[in-house]
Amino acid sequence: MEMQVNFFLAIAVIVSILSFIEAYWLYKWVKKQPASNARVIEIGELIRKGANTFLAKEYKKLAAFSGIVVIFILLLLPSPIWSGNITDNMIMAAAYICGTIFSAIAGKVGITIATIANVKAAEASKEGIQKSFMAGFRGGAVMGMAVVGSSLFGVSLIYLLTRDTTALLGFSFGASSLALFAKAGGGIFTKTADVSADLVGKVELGIPEDDPRNPAVIADNVGDNVGDVAGMGADLFDSNVASMAAALVMAVALDQGTGKMLNTSMVFCYGAIGLLASIIGVASARIGKKGNPTRALNNSTYVTTAIFGILTVLATIIFGFEWRIWGASAVGLLIGVIIGIATNYFTDDTKKPVHAVAKSSESGPAFTVLSGISYGLISTLPAIVGIAFSALIAYKLCEPLGSGYALFGISMSALGMLSIVGMIISNDAYGPIVDNARGLVEMGNLGDKALEVTDSLDSAGNTVKAVTKGFAIGAAGLTVIALLGAFISEVNGAALELGKEAISNFDIMNPLVFFGLLVGCSIPVVFSAMLMLGVEKNAQRMVAEIHRQFEEIDGLKEGKEGVMPEYDKCIEIATDGAMKELIPAGLMAIIATIVVGIIGGVQAIGGFLTGNIISGLLFALFMSNTGGLWDNTKKFVEAGNHGGKGSRAHKSAVVGDTVGDPFKDTAGPSINTQITVVSLVASLMSTIFLTLSLFGK
Amino acid sequence: MEMQVNFFLAIAVIVSILSFIEAYWLYKWVKKQPASNARVIEIGELIRKGANTFLAKEYKKLAAFSGIVVIFILLLLPSPIWSGNITDNMIMAAAYICGTIFSAIAGKVGITIATIANVKAAEASKEGIQKSFMAGFRGGAVMGMAVVGSSLFGVSLIYLLTRDTTALLGFSFGASSLALFAKAGGGIFTKTADVSADLVGKVELGIPEDDPRNPAVIADNVGDNVGDVAGMGADLFDSNVASMAAALVMAVALDQGTGKMLNTSMVFCYGAIGLLASIIGVASARIGKKGNPTRALNNSTYVTTAIFGILTVLATIIFGFEWRIWGASAVGLLIGVIIGIATNYFTDDTKKPVHAVAKSSESGPAFTVLSGISYGLISTLPAIVGIAFSALIAYKLCEPLGSGYALFGISMSALGMLSIVGMIISNDAYGPIVDNARGLVEMGNLGDKALEVTDSLDSAGNTVKAVTKGFAIGAAGLTVIALLGAFISEVNGAALELGKEAISNFDIMNPLVFFGLLVGCSIPVVFSAMLMLGVEKNAQRMVAEIHRQFEEIDGLKEGKEGVMPEYDKCIEIATDGAMKELIPAGLMAIIATIVVGIIGGVQAIGGFLTGNIISGLLFALFMSNTGGLWDNTKKFVEAGNHGGKGSRAHKSAVVGDTVGDPFKDTAGPSINTQITVVSLVASLMSTIFLTLSLFGK
Repeated sequence: MEMQVNFFLAIAVIVSILSFIEAYWLYKWVKKQPASNARVIEIGELIRKGANTFLAKEYKKLAAFSGIVVIFILLLLPSPIWSGNITDNMIMAAAYICGTIFSAIAGKVGITIATIANVKAAEASKEGIQKSFMAGFRGGAVMGMAVVGSSLFGVSLIYLLTRDTTALLGFSFGASSLALFAKAGGGIFTKTADVSADLVGKVELGIPEDDPRNPAVIADNVGDNVGDVAGMGADLFDSNVASMAAALVMAVALDQGTGKMLNTSMVFCYGAIGLLASIIGVASARIGKKGNPTRALNNSTYVTTAIFGILTVLATIIFGFEWRIWGASAVGLLIGVIIGIATNYFTDDTKKPVHAVAKSSESGPAFTVLSGISYGLISTLPAIVGIAFSALIAYKLCEPLGSGYALFGISMSALGMLSIVGMIISNDAYGPIVDNARGLVEMGNLGDKALEVTDSLDSAGNTVKAVTKGFAIGAAGLTVIALLGAFISEVNGAALELGKEAISNFDIMNPLVFFGLLVGCSIPVVFSAMLMLGVEKNAQRMVAEIHRQFEEIDGLKEGKEGVMPEYDKCIEIATDGAMKELIPAGLMAIIATIVVGIIGGVQAIGGFLTGNIISGLLFALFMSNTGGLWDNTKKFVEAGNHGGKGSRAHKSAVVGDTVGDPFKDTAGPSINTQITVVSLVASLMSTIFLTLSLFGK
Repeated sequence: MEMQVNFFLAIAVIVSILSFIEAYWLYKWVKKQPASNARVIEIGELIRKGANTFLAKEYKKLAAFSGIVVIFILLLLPSPIWSGNITDNMIMAAAYICGTIFSAIAGKVGITIATIANVKAAEASKEGIQKSFMAGFRGGAVMGMAVVGSSLFGVSLIYLLTRDTTALLGFSFGASSLALFAKAGGGIFTKTADVSADLVGKVELGIPEDDPRNPAVIADNVGDNVGDVAGMGADLFDSNVASMAAALVMAVALDQGTGKMLNTSMVFCYGAIGLLASIIGVASARIGKKGNPTRALNNSTYVTTAIFGILTVLATIIFGFEWRIWGASAVGLLIGVIIGIATNYFTDDTKKPVHAVAKSSESGPAFTVLSGISYGLISTLPAIVGIAFSALIAYKLCEPLGSGYALFGISMSALGMLSIVGMIISNDAYGPIVDNARGLVEMGNLGDKALEVTDSLDSAGNTVKAVTKGFAIGAAGLTVIALLGAFISEVNGAALELGKEAISNFDIMNPLVFFGLLVGCSIPVVFSAMLMLGVEKNAQRMVAEIHRQFEEIDGLKEGKEGVMPEYDKCIEIATDGAMKELIPAGLMAIIATIVVGIIGGVQAIGGFLTGNIISGLLFALFMSNTGGLWDNTKKFVEAGNHGGKGSRAHKSAVVGDTVGDPFKDTAGPSINTQITVVSLVASLMSTIFLTLSLFGK
């Protein structure tokens, strides 16, 4: 029944194209909004140019990195050139390159629209909340549609052309490589700029935040865009592609020999429905003249969720898909919502944790840090237990369908959680756009009313972000579990070809598995620590550059008319440094995977991936939530509680927020990408681990 | 060949008695050292009384807790009273009680000698380093001999009387219960007192540290003893008993039906040799008039290690033990040393991490925290990889001996790492004794020479402590892996009786195992967070009490002659609060184990224990090492680096140290105990999990 798959592939491609059309329409709408304030336009232009400088540098480094990976793929993957088929390796290399390019384009689109929409939202805020909200939201939605559309389009295209699931893993690996650069590199960039600008500006010279004399000020604003917009987009592109690839690897294996391609069809069908639901959800977003932006954002999410639910039920009836698999994907979506709400409790400034940390801050910064870390650690519980239950339920639901269905169920659960990812990205990208708009309103002196409007838009962005972040981490957790299933599929495929025994389990009591578990659990920990140390080292370089400019450029410190700092130099240093610090961390993770595989073979890798997932989830949740908790604690104190601005509690809360910044913007979210990269490397190298290994069979 | 086992049991008992004799002799020696300074004696007396107040309270709470556990055991363990043999349950209850009593006695002995030796070491420091060192070291050695002697004695006695390995697990469970109270409770106590004394004394009133007007000052000094001496002793008593119990459970199972009891004999033989080596090592400790205390401590450790190596080789030749098992235990000892040295790198004030964190501190407390956490995270790597390799090597070495030997090899590797535990405790208890002595020298104005002497003794204590802590955590890691083996042994024993299928593996791809893994990994995280929050809550109560005393006691604030604060009130509050905060955390861990077992049966428990081990090891290492790193960073800055005392770097380093205190003294070290308790609960309840479970078979 190739026909049936082709039908759903066609649908997926059509829906992707629809999403591109919607993105283009939204882009045009945002672009034609008015912008008149010269100061706002000028600063906006500087931010736009800076972000493009970063992207250009990043993509150049990535191209060099990809070149090496491509050679590696041509020689070794999916099987060594001397034992395999060179065509397979060439297909894999092409798929890898497509993965990087698709993701890069989505990132570029996101940055382009974000650096337009911020100016428009700032300008519109003078007129009231309605237009300003729509500019911010539709700007974010361009990104959301571009990311999800191109991931569905890319996956469909690769499958259509190759009919080879290993090539899909190659595509996914390409997306992950880019995500590693965009998310971890962007994370280092943004915190480098933030820290350096504050250290020299506020601490040494006592000039205000966002002062245009500060050579790092544009880099700081660029950072928000490259980290929160491009980085987040690449991250979710990566998760989305990885979860589809993992599901497809298993679906195709299950469909083999059945004549029908029901499971494969289902993956494409559900993917298309998710995107369609997001398209409608985005189009339906409305806000009244005095509307509540949080409610508007949440309403469109509910619309999307409901449409996804209804359409998948209809599709399952019409096309005769398995209800149990539908159940797994519904459970994923449901538990995603629960995780989001539970995670929100730990970062919401109306709830106990933020209040308790704010109270502790009265006793000094050490207590802000201690209580923040304590609540942050506890906050990992709901998401971890949620993922545990959703994996267990999906497995048990689909197990009766036959061998292999249980793991496929988990991957469909991940796909369910990610089904509304288009909406999630739209909401997520909305955040930094209105945050930027707020900054522009302040710098451009657009008045108190405008400030009030952008404040309320910004606060809605923060609230919604907590929920979407819970979704993103939950989905990443399920996706990597599904990738473990994909790894087994790949290993067994390779084992069949090599005439080796298939594997079906990883026994913890097998010392190779246990060895892998222990080594694996330490990788995300070391990876995140290396990124945080990278921020510090990079900030030292940038501080030196800022000092140089203040010394060498006449009249800069005094603010002489017409004297401008060399903003680009700072952006370049932050960019180069970010890449320099990122590469050792990324290589460490990849090399550790290869070493463990060579020592202990596929059994050790099974343990290694599991160890990675476990400690990776723990630390990603801990760092993201703790950072969010401290951020909101600072805002809560600044709102006048516990003495307000300038009080002892405030000083302590600022320390907490500074610690939390690299936690939540550099280390925490990069861990997801690291785990995905490692899982894909393991899957792609399964043939090599099967044939070459010291202790493994 | 019961005869042979009896022979080694007799040897073990004789060596234990020898260690008691040595402890008694050392106790007498310390006691007859002179003490003349009235002020030193008076303060010493207050500390002694305070520590005993804590112990009395703690033991009373423990007795109540044990009462409940005993009823639980009588009803349910090893098998429910309605299905099993009531005699077995009575034996188990008796073994449990013995475990708590033996550990309690060892703790009491430790506190008694530590609160004598501190005064003697202080007094002797006037005469030079030689006598002062010996007072400190021999005081610590009394504790070391008492702990290890009574653990070997207890294990031998229980086995001699019952010949039942399940009863040994009961004994071990008793030891763990006490350790939970002593280590986690003591940890909360000590940091409560420390934090409260500082907050009111230094921050609010500006009176110096250790000022006798501060109602919390004695509680603070007591804290060092109950946390570092009694708590550490109970912790290592627990590890030592658990590793012997785990080894014996497997050894007896292996020996079943062989006629020979070679493996069981070997466990007792190696245990006795380890203790004997420590007895000789302690007796051999010497220092010259101008000797180097670090070298003296290390020399006696090397002597102990060498004697253990030689005697185990001889024993293996003479009694025909397996060389492969000897190898496993030698690998354990060797890797223990490597872990110790590698861990030391991250906390030593002559190495890069301390220097880098001190440098970062110049930029403010947030950077102290960030760089400290980063290095702390990386510091987990050597120990985790070391444990991974030592488990892998031990397994592979012993696997060829037959089924079941591989896991037994891991338990013997743990036993090898713990073989010199007598020496480790001696060195570890030396630390707080000379630390206390240094305080007494300062409070009693014994002069600069005495201060110099105690300073150098104290610094040697800190250096050696880092190494011994690495040993302790490494051994705990291997022990809990061995306990996983013991759990399988217990499950299979129960399965045999119930006519159920034996289990031999825990497959990660089994959703119940994976479910257990995820839930299990979050338990140590939540447990440690609850303890840290407990410290904060408890400190609030104590701060209120200090305020009350300053308000209600006339002349206290002014320091009127003859007016004394009610030290005992503070000690009582800290004690009661510690118990109150500890119990929910402990119950959470135990209840989670039971819930997971009821939901998912033994498979889920296998995953649960593994998840516990993985995240427990990570967080225990991270918290202990980061705390040590910050402590030494503060000392490094105080020694005049980066501006010295009062500088910006110093203020930042103080924040780091305050965060690090509950990390390293409350949360980090308690995690080991939590994992052991959970592992033992799981083993003891294996029959129940086999028969009652929702999803498990």
